[in-house]
Amino acid sequence: MLGAVEAGGTKFVLAVGPAPGRITARTQIPTRDPGTTLAEAADWFAAQGTLTAIGIGSFGPLELDPGSPRWGFITNTPKPGWADCDIAGFFRTRFGVPVGLDTDVNAAALAEYAAVQAEGCRSLAYLTIGTGIGGGLVLDGQPVHGIAHPEMGHIFPRRHPQDRDFPGICPHHGDCLEGLASGPAIKARWGASLSELPADHPGHAIIADYIAQACHMLFATLAVERVVIGGGVAKTSELLARVAARMVELGAGYLPGGARHQIAAPVYGDNAGITGAAMLADQVGVTC
Amino acid sequence: MLGAVEAGGTKFVLAVGPAPGRITARTQIPTRDPGTTLAEAADWFAAQGTLTAIGIGSFGPLELDPGSPRWGFITNTPKPGWADCDIAGFFRTRFGVPVGLDTDVNAAALAEYAAVQAEGCRSLAYLTIGTGIGGGLVLDGQPVHGIAHPEMGHIFPRRHPQDRDFPGICPHHGDCLEGLASGPAIKARWGASLSELPADHPGHAIIADYIAQACHMLFATLAVERVVIGGGVAKTSELLARVAARMVELGAGYLPGGARHQIAAPVYGDNAGITGAAMLADQVGVTC
Repeated sequence: MLGAVEAGGTKFVLAVGPAPGRITARTQIPTRDPGTTLAEAADWFAAQGTLTAIGIGSFGPLELDPGSPRWGFITNTPKPGWADCDIAGFFRTRFGVPVGLDTDVNAAALAEYAAVQAEGCRSLAYLTIGTGIGGGLVLDGQPVHGIAHPEMGHIFPRRHPQDRDFPGICPHHGDCLEGLASGPAIKARWGASLSELPADHPGHAIIADYIAQACHMLFATLAVERVVIGGGVAKTSELLARVAARMVELGAGYLPGGARHQIAAPVYGDNAGITGAAMLADQVGVTC
Repeated sequence: MLGAVEAGGTKFVLAVGPAPGRITARTQIPTRDPGTTLAEAADWFAAQGTLTAIGIGSFGPLELDPGSPRWGFITNTPKPGWADCDIAGFFRTRFGVPVGLDTDVNAAALAEYAAVQAEGCRSLAYLTIGTGIGGGLVLDGQPVHGIAHPEMGHIFPRRHPQDRDFPGICPHHGDCLEGLASGPAIKARWGASLSELPADHPGHAIIADYIAQACHMLFATLAVERVVIGGGVAKTSELLARVAARMVELGAGYLPGGARHQIAAPVYGDNAGITGAAMLADQVGVTC
């Protein structure tokens, strides 16, 4: 039986099942300090039966260099108490099973890739637009790490002409993508969530433009075939259609393969991350 | 003996040698119409002895889908006469040897990756800033294609505050990166090449800013370790140092692995593309 953890900044989702697509039990717990939350998670898994492997999709930054003695650690997160937390080591030690770890967004990208692989898709990015903005990437079945892992929320989109004055809320970059288009940035600007704004509010076009710029960047830089957009903000009615329309304007028909570029909601909905975490368990269980 | 072709918009570089890093003869010919130029190239190769494989790094767009019956074609290039040219098929038919093909920039990225792989680098992007702007990408030894191939010149950097009015020269996008920072864009704006402008001209900071934004985008999106910057504009004195300094400002110390991000001139200099083309010949020669 596989164990799966989606470790988020506000909640941990936990699940078990015999295979990644077959979750038989699931729960979620609030994210408190690591000692409390990891112990709670372990107690829940222990009550489910014997695990053969555990997969974790986690908030970051993470140390994912397999050659590093600190592989498996959450590193310099600003989240109180969680910096330098050996999240993979905790579960490996507690259960004596192999543990797979990747970012929450790479895990979600793995699940979404698996969902469309049979249709011939070989490259997929997963963007989450919520409390924060992040991105994961799977090319030819492999999650992309580079020297660490992607931090797609921190690219700089061009400012929309009707959104020139808002300074953005990213503590590092001000008006990067996360600073402009995350849920808290929307609330800071307009006092409401995007789905609460009236249909004729300019915020809809502004946020769609910023997300479309991120999609265009992915298409131009990687010729990625499919960009899946999840997270709370992405559930706003009509947002993905606005992003797709704006993305076509930005591309101007130029990019090779552009006719096959797709923007889509997650096939797995809110289960993309936890399903991907179960896939990480499955992979590491086979390897070890 | 391997044959290598770097097919550019203004010239073809041709080379032969027993291994990718050991070129024993080399020439270059102007790019005219395909019939003339390909025949000239074939005549030169025929005079060098018997080839075992040919590698081509070419301007694009290219059809690189191995499942397509049009694999190996230059597709919808605006370059007169070259649209729908079966460049790989020409050399395969003429010499009866396996032919490898990728974009000129992916070929250059392959060569530069090979040059630093021994130092542990596992992810590298190659940007060329010249008559046009393009980018190639090698992750874990594999060139990235996605659904077609990267077209990194067509991302949209934020406009520099001292460069608000120039409309850009890209026929598709106006003020995309290529429209703003390529050699012809520099000349259209300031009547001279970047290296001809006085050291205190604002153009130096403006162009460095645009290229640094492209580098930041690569670091944030892919956590790529090394961005190699080649092409004529990149030879401007102090440009790469300005780009590196601006890239540090943009990152603001946030990106994981950021201490290892590198911006560098090509190890192979002007031979990056032709060396990568020879690597493509070597790979396909082994495979077939």
